[in-house]
Amino acid sequence: QSTVIERLDKRPKLVAMDTMNFWMDIAMDDLKKTISMVDLLIINDEEARQLSGEYSLVKASKVIRDMGPKFLIIKKGEHGALLFNEDKLFYAPALPLEEVFDPTGAGDTFAGGFMGYIASTNDISFDNMKRAIINGSALASFCCEKFGTERLTTITEKDLSDRIAEFVALANFDFAQKIA
Amino acid sequence: QSTVIERLDKRPKLVAMDTMNFWMDIAMDDLKKTISMVDLLIINDEEARQLSGEYSLVKASKVIRDMGPKFLIIKKGEHGALLFNEDKLFYAPALPLEEVFDPTGAGDTFAGGFMGYIASTNDISFDNMKRAIINGSALASFCCEKFGTERLTTITEKDLSDRIAEFVALANFDFAQKIA
Repeated sequence: QSTVIERLDKRPKLVAMDTMNFWMDIAMDDLKKTISMVDLLIINDEEARQLSGEYSLVKASKVIRDMGPKFLIIKKGEHGALLFNEDKLFYAPALPLEEVFDPTGAGDTFAGGFMGYIASTNDISFDNMKRAIINGSALASFCCEKFGTERLTTITEKDLSDRIAEFVALANFDFAQKIA
Repeated sequence: QSTVIERLDKRPKLVAMDTMNFWMDIAMDDLKKTISMVDLLIINDEEARQLSGEYSLVKASKVIRDMGPKFLIIKKGEHGALLFNEDKLFYAPALPLEEVFDPTGAGDTFAGGFMGYIASTNDISFDNMKRAIINGSALASFCCEKFGTERLTTITEKDLSDRIAEFVALANFDFAQKIA
């Protein structure tokens, strides 16, 4: 992966990386070198703790961002995902599911849905990254509904926009009128 | 608790109850009788699973609401809280903390902060319950910062409104411009 980055003639707007405990166990030094070359790291909560040596995800996020990536997403499975950048923090919920048929690939679907959204909108602002996370979370929720990629091959644009609307309803609250 | 409810001359707008695994272990039948008399039940995820016999919190919420309460809040500690009512669902985040000094009493602080907000606004709509959950979550986050009630005795109105603003920033995202 580091060689791929080095061979790029023109560095893209955003380079993201998803890694896992396996590489931390057997190749931590090489992994850290590659992490230092990316803008965004996407890992789960256990991996964030292993990589940083910190239990608190807030502390872990600082240690990991000191390794290089300005942006960090920590995936917490059924508990949603956190996005860190500078002093900004976003907590995306996961959609509570009646039944999780097969979560295999949900994390990769999330990462693909995130990067696809960023690529198609060409906007790496924090606000747009929030939308990208919701897009990734919505796609990941479909992934869990059937085996493997089965459900993902059948969803329509409308399925996706309906699912995103569910996330908006799920997370939306309005304090403006009360604390104005 | 059931006797208290029976002795009320005039039933309040909202009767809420917080219970725990201890009562499920030793007095499930009495507990279920009391649960059937309240409008809102507040429990944590493990208790929801024990009470319902369902692992999925969405399924558990249906079983528990069939026992009587129209509203159900499932607290997930550092992972936030879920509010269920009819076909509506709200996911409140918890504020990721740098350090959790002492979480003792955080659940009770949450429940008190929730009910205090409902009582002071006299509004039991779903939208206002969302605000009440954020108010309870904000107060619970203070509770964890020092031992016992120590931190709670020193917070000001401004501390609370600043903390609520942190929750707004944490959870807020805007898809309107993109899916309009």
